Amino acid sequence: MTVHLVGAGCGGPLWLVLRARELLQDAAHVVYDSLIHPDLLQLAPEGCEFHPVGKRKGRPSHNQGDVNELLVRLGRSGDNVVRLKGGDPFVFGRGGEEAIALSEAGIPWTYTPGITAAIGGLGAAGIPPTHRGVADSITLVTGHSAGGESPNAELWRSIGSLGGTKAVYMGASSWGELHPLLRQ
Amino acid sequence: MTVHLVGAGCGGPLWLVLRARELLQDAAHVVYDSLIHPDLLQLAPEGCEFHPVGKRKGRPSHNQGDVNELLVRLGRSGDNVVRLKGGDPFVFGRGGEEAIALSEAGIPWTYTPGITAAIGGLGAAGIPPTHRGVADSITLVTGHSAGGESPNAELWRSIGSLGGTKAVYMGASSWGELHPLLRQ
Repeated sequence: MTVHLVGAGCGGPLWLVLRARELLQDAAHVVYDSLIHPDLLQLAPEGCEFHPVGKRKGRPSHNQGDVNELLVRLGRSGDNVVRLKGGDPFVFGRGGEEAIALSEAGIPWTYTPGITAAIGGLGAAGIPPTHRGVADSITLVTGHSAGGESPNAELWRSIGSLGGTKAVYMGASSWGELHPLLRQ
Repeated sequence: MTVHLVGAGCGGPLWLVLRARELLQDAAHVVYDSLIHPDLLQLAPEGCEFHPVGKRKGRPSHNQGDVNELLVRLGRSGDNVVRLKGGDPFVFGRGGEEAIALSEAGIPWTYTPGITAAIGGLGAAGIPPTHRGVADSITLVTGHSAGGESPNAELWRSIGSLGGTKAVYMGASSWGELHPLLRQ
């Protein structure tokens, strides 16, 4: 009776950590997000049940509370449950909220990391996120704040003032507002 | 004739991405850092040559120029060369400098990511680096600046002013100076 919070990384199966593949190969249930490489699901064994719970802006989507309830229910079944999340489960993935829901229900969970897009995506393009004498830091930040309210101008100006690399997750729809703040 | 810049991640073999294991299993030469999990080297085939080039503070260490030269020389041999670096090759790993040296010598290189300590280490401890409503960002920053000079107080105060999570790499020896700046 364990729910495994597993990072799908930002690429295909070759960028999955070995432990993630082991867990997928042994899964009775896979609860997965949108934007996950489709080949990853093929690692699960025959008979595995798939539960898509992806959230996509502008489309009907699964409420986080429903996802938490589903994980608790599957966790109670005693089967091996993999919660496959894009990138790393704990980097802008609301994995922390799922872990809390599971803990509150008395269901054990584990964490398996994944390659987060800011690092793997830049690296695959041949761009080091940090580089001696050029970028001494990298900041990963969400462009989509908790309440959906306007961006915190002071925070974004502080981030802009850092000399290093900045990676904005889920920032496409707020980029018009964020970009001028980062440049100030 | 390719040098593979490969992330060793921040754990043992189970936290290695699948591509990294493939490359290690096929390596004729492995050039590796200190602080890499020893079990990773056992993935290399019999006959593989190992080249330790770790840098540790306060001990005689390999100069980065010497490491670059070694990679170029091994790359020219035509054998499969793995440059195994702690964490991700491009996150505070000077992988960018090695990539430049290889490119300048006309030697092709590839990038394979690894789990960086700020994310995997916190996650393994059950601490999400980001959490909705608590930490909207995570900043990875080096505590060891390029010239070895004193920390840039303005930069560290800016980082301290961000509400999110901060992870300081190679900061143990400068922590006494950095910590008060982060708290201001």
